[in-house]
Amino acid sequence: MTSTRTNETRIDVPADVPLVRITREFDAPPARVFRAHVDPELVARWLGPRAMEMRIDHYDCRTGGSYRYLHVGGGAEHGFHGAFHEVRDGELIVQTFTWEGMPDGVALEKLVFTDLGDGRTRLTATSLVDSFADRDAFVAGGMEVGVRESYERLEELLTR
Amino acid sequence: MTSTRTNETRIDVPADVPLVRITREFDAPPARVFRAHVDPELVARWLGPRAMEMRIDHYDCRTGGSYRYLHVGGGAEHGFHGAFHEVRDGELIVQTFTWEGMPDGVALEKLVFTDLGDGRTRLTATSLVDSFADRDAFVAGGMEVGVRESYERLEELLTR
Repeated sequence: MTSTRTNETRIDVPADVPLVRITREFDAPPARVFRAHVDPELVARWLGPRAMEMRIDHYDCRTGGSYRYLHVGGGAEHGFHGAFHEVRDGELIVQTFTWEGMPDGVALEKLVFTDLGDGRTRLTATSLVDSFADRDAFVAGGMEVGVRESYERLEELLTR
Repeated sequence: MTSTRTNETRIDVPADVPLVRITREFDAPPARVFRAHVDPELVARWLGPRAMEMRIDHYDCRTGGSYRYLHVGGGAEHGFHGAFHEVRDGELIVQTFTWEGMPDGVALEKLVFTDLGDGRTRLTATSLVDSFADRDAFVAGGMEVGVRESYERLEELLTR
């Protein structure tokens, strides 16, 4: 498939606001990309590095719901939790995010699903935090590798 | 009481990060100030301007809970909703906030309750958004009057 080469994950760190913006296109319509974020059985098949197993404690992806999951592998176990502020069918997910290794840190995440036509979708995911130091530590901490690998796995799931 | 004159609401808008920081001290211990934020019957007695009645749709202030309420008065009705990311007893509330008049806008709010001893508490509330334009519009839109009046009402409730 020629398009797999063009579906690169782009990561931007604006100079003026402490957020990370991740942009990725997928060869699947918005309804399918959205569903892969909402259905916990699908989420567990792509979110996180290949070397880690995702164990879901709860994942109630609806406006006012919440989630908690673990990434387990190589003797390590990382917990993550947050709340779903708004879930708009096929369009938008706004949620909070905390890595439990840094329990006082929290990000506000916005996932926008844009219909590109021809069965394609652009996903734009922003993570907003309250300091540039935290944002830059997050990016320097190898987040890029995990994000690219997650989205490769998501693409495999969607185009299977 | 001499201390009421010193309990001023301070509002800071940092130049480098798009957040508003509100600081206020209260003549009541952290457990009481916290409870006035958690118990919907108490919240309804102080949150918002005196001229508006607060009607609670739901207010489930616990980690993973959510809320929605209306401010009603003078022929106007404003809806607000959000999710509680984390509620740490007597210490911390992290929540999201949307005014339904601007349904795509969302703030990440952090309320920290600091014990000052002698039955006093400092409340530090930050609201983080993803653009300086939105932050500045929020401040310019008369938010200051509403915040000061709310905290006067909260002080009256706590020191009654």
